[in-house]
Amino acid sequence: MTEQLPAPMPVAVLGANGRMGAEAVKAIEAATDMKLVAALGRGDSLDRITAAGAQYVVDLTVPESTEANVRFAVEHGIHAVVGTTGWDAERLSGLKGLLANHPETGVLIAPNFALGSVLASAFAAKASKYFESVEIIELHHPDKVDAPSGTAVRTAQLIAAERNAAEIPPSPDATTSELAGARGCKVDGVRVHSVRLRGLVAHQEVLLGGSGEQLTLRHDSFDRASFMPGVLLGLRNVAAHPGLTVGLDGYLDLGL
Amino acid sequence: MTEQLPAPMPVAVLGANGRMGAEAVKAIEAATDMKLVAALGRGDSLDRITAAGAQYVVDLTVPESTEANVRFAVEHGIHAVVGTTGWDAERLSGLKGLLANHPETGVLIAPNFALGSVLASAFAAKASKYFESVEIIELHHPDKVDAPSGTAVRTAQLIAAERNAAEIPPSPDATTSELAGARGCKVDGVRVHSVRLRGLVAHQEVLLGGSGEQLTLRHDSFDRASFMPGVLLGLRNVAAHPGLTVGLDGYLDLGL
Amino acid sequence: MTEQLPAPMPVAVLGANGRMGAEAVKAIEAATDMKLVAALGRGDSLDRITAAGAQYVVDLTVPESTEANVRFAVEHGIHAVVGTTGWDAERLSGLKGLLANHPETGVLIAPNFALGSVLASAFAAKASKYFESVEIIELHHPDKVDAPSGTAVRTAQLIAAERNAAEIPPSPDATTSELAGARGCKVDGVRVHSVRLRGLVAHQEVLLGGSGEQLTLRHDSFDRASFMPGVLLGLRNVAAHPGLTVGLDGYLDLGL
Amino acid sequence: MTEQLPAPMPVAVLGANGRMGAEAVKAIEAATDMKLVAALGRGDSLDRITAAGAQYVVDLTVPESTEANVRFAVEHGIHAVVGTTGWDAERLSGLKGLLANHPETGVLIAPNFALGSVLASAFAAKASKYFESVEIIELHHPDKVDAPSGTAVRTAQLIAAERNAAEIPPSPDATTSELAGARGCKVDGVRVHSVRLRGLVAHQEVLLGGSGEQLTLRHDSFDRASFMPGVLLGLRNVAAHPGLTVGLDGYLDLGL
Repeated sequence: MTEQLPAPMPVAVLGANGRMGAEAVKAIEAATDMKLVAALGRGDSLDRITAAGAQYVVDLTVPESTEANVRFAVEHGIHAVVGTTGWDAERLSGLKGLLANHPETGVLIAPNFALGSVLASAFAAKASKYFESVEIIELHHPDKVDAPSGTAVRTAQLIAAERNAAEIPPSPDATTSELAGARGCKVDGVRVHSVRLRGLVAHQEVLLGGSGEQLTLRHDSFDRASFMPGVLLGLRNVAAHPGLTVGLDGYLDLGL
Repeated sequence: MTEQLPAPMPVAVLGANGRMGAEAVKAIEAATDMKLVAALGRGDSLDRITAAGAQYVVDLTVPESTEANVRFAVEHGIHAVVGTTGWDAERLSGLKGLLANHPETGVLIAPNFALGSVLASAFAAKASKYFESVEIIELHHPDKVDAPSGTAVRTAQLIAAERNAAEIPPSPDATTSELAGARGCKVDGVRVHSVRLRGLVAHQEVLLGGSGEQLTLRHDSFDRASFMPGVLLGLRNVAAHPGLTVGLDGYLDLGL
Repeated sequence: MTEQLPAPMPVAVLGANGRMGAEAVKAIEAATDMKLVAALGRGDSLDRITAAGAQYVVDLTVPESTEANVRFAVEHGIHAVVGTTGWDAERLSGLKGLLANHPETGVLIAPNFALGSVLASAFAAKASKYFESVEIIELHHPDKVDAPSGTAVRTAQLIAAERNAAEIPPSPDATTSELAGARGCKVDGVRVHSVRLRGLVAHQEVLLGGSGEQLTLRHDSFDRASFMPGVLLGLRNVAAHPGLTVGLDGYLDLGL
Repeated sequence: MTEQLPAPMPVAVLGANGRMGAEAVKAIEAATDMKLVAALGRGDSLDRITAAGAQYVVDLTVPESTEANVRFAVEHGIHAVVGTTGWDAERLSGLKGLLANHPETGVLIAPNFALGSVLASAFAAKASKYFESVEIIELHHPDKVDAPSGTAVRTAQLIAAERNAAEIPPSPDATTSELAGARGCKVDGVRVHSVRLRGLVAHQEVLLGGSGEQLTLRHDSFDRASFMPGVLLGLRNVAAHPGLTVGLDGYLDLGL
């Protein structure tokens, strides 16, 4: 008698023609515990999802269509893993209301699927209350238009929240003479420096300093492939997390 | 009516003439919530601890005397924070037996008081199950006689335990032609590399690699002062942790 | 009267179907001062080079054919830039003899076209006589079969030659207790450590340490595109360097 | 017949009670090829230098007295190694005039005696014309009052001069949306970022980026001892460099 393997998870990818979507298609096809049952591009009818029997969708589309996509999935009891941006408080609130009527369906909305990046931010926040000083350096390719990066802003906010809750004073700084910009920008009181360099992709360092010691948490994203382990981890865990989860860290076992 | 500050914690330092002990004396004298009531060197009678009214001791002595020192403290209901090595399974077992009779007394035995180092090891272990590859590089001054360092060995053991529990396969390695030693040594299956360089003190990097991404956790100890915030944190928390705690991470808020 | 731009350099690529060759084809087509006149693959006749009027060839083939390719070029007065391995002392000696009869023709044989890597090795060698300690860490993807890397071996040899000439003693090392391999391998007396990590491509650090200070020279190769600026620099300078040059550093302006 | 060792170099230290001067006294006393013949503090008569038979002086005093000290030395044919700041164009010009009358006497004025730092800046400038992008990160303890550091400013100026001479365009930067300061300050067109962190001393990284590759040159000063090898190297070479030399790199063998 042979062991019965569980049936592979039937997954549909929305936004399959975009750069991230194309990577997701490849990653799901390569995963032995998943089966790609539909790959939708711009203009394809959402009915293809249900027709194909998908029980999971990955949404990697655009801010204009992600809300309708996710609501369609939830209304049909299909779990959703979402990497598209544009989910403001109003949209999230509406989605929560809808999920209340579908208590067994799970949705994960994650601004960042790079496991290492999510871990680094969580560790940085947790560590920051044990150090006198903390600053962030983010480094990207020179075609990026915004500075600092969204990830750096979120990391600084997490750190600031943790330090404020623990009543840690601001990082010390005796600077009285500064060439404008030398000390970076401030996000919730945390200094952030943005480097732009040909050859780089997406990198971030959180530097924590105390008397006689330094802790450095660095994450390097070398290519988009780095997001796929996080997408697969999301798919494998979304059914076990009914309701709305924001942030991949909600699925990670980080209790130390 | 003025606010009543709590009375300062009365602390005795054992091994006060050693390099670590001298740092501890300075750190306790500088702490506004503590009072140094006794500083004992080699040959001083332990009765000075009780005569001075100490309710806390810091033991920074030598393996030959630490057990007697700690047992004396526990027998007198005095909390102990211990940085001395030499606590094997037999000694720890004996101490637990003694503590069972003193249920309100706390003992912390910590092989490493550098907060950043303890955090880095805990983070590395927790992160290691989300990455295909993990290796450790430790870097020290060239007068160190052992390689790898004790901290690197412990970090590798923590990582191996976490990965084994999660059934992560060994880090991939296609090496077929190696100049002996190039790939480092193995501790519980984890590769460790030891660098010795004039100018350095004590440094460690844990490198975690996955598809298209890398997470690096680095800790630098620049001088012995880096251990004192951990000693003070131990003293401030030992009374709230009756019984035996091994490792400073037991006192840190690392739930993420 | 308009300014006359010089005519573009007519270049043939040998090994154009290989991974490096394909990158070279793209790079030469994108260079405004060059014109790709021929792209040869396995089995193509070398006569196509002369028929196309090439005055420059890039050889990115295999050790079995590179010697015949380069000799053909030199015999026809065509400058050659060579990235193929397999040029031992005997082949080099024969090529020098041939070049003696073609005093205006230049050949560059370079084991490494990554400018940053070549610069880092040259700097490391030059700096190494001013520091007590030096060690090398090289980091690559885990599918690499040899450890240490060829670049690390060459860097160690350059460093050892420079230190020996300046009569610098070996790097200090008090290690008496070593877990086998912890301290890496030795190349001409220089310690080299090889890390293998998923997600990495090709990276190297030279660590130099002296009393109270450290100098670190790190090079990261993120993809094969990093070799093309060196190939183009070679092509642009080979005609001005008649005879044989081994190593791209021979063309770099490194006089400080 | 025994080999005759050369007589030790007779050296006087000016500013011997300052922090740097005290380090210099220790370093000269420890050097087997030197003899400390005088150590002058504030208010001591310069005649003590000649009375002691010094042939070399190290000036580690203050901007107010360094000019008179060095002129006294030159007038007595004594070589001078100078670490004091305050040598503007006018003072340097006057000193050159004086040295013209003492053609066998050497003076070295060095704003930075850390060998690794001087090497890193020289390498960075030389490498910078081979890369599309370059930025500088300097990291110091949080009690420093100026940002960026003087060393970072000088490094940026060296880099800018080298790139301008080679007609390299500015580093690419597509930033259109910046939180003020995120992209650092500009020194001669080179971006500089200043980090302030408890636990650090003085550190600098020059990041150079090109297509698919990065070169990083990092220098760490862990304590003032790092300046002494440079001071001794200056003393050992000053007699062989008559006239005025500005910058320790003038004595280093950096021809590559």
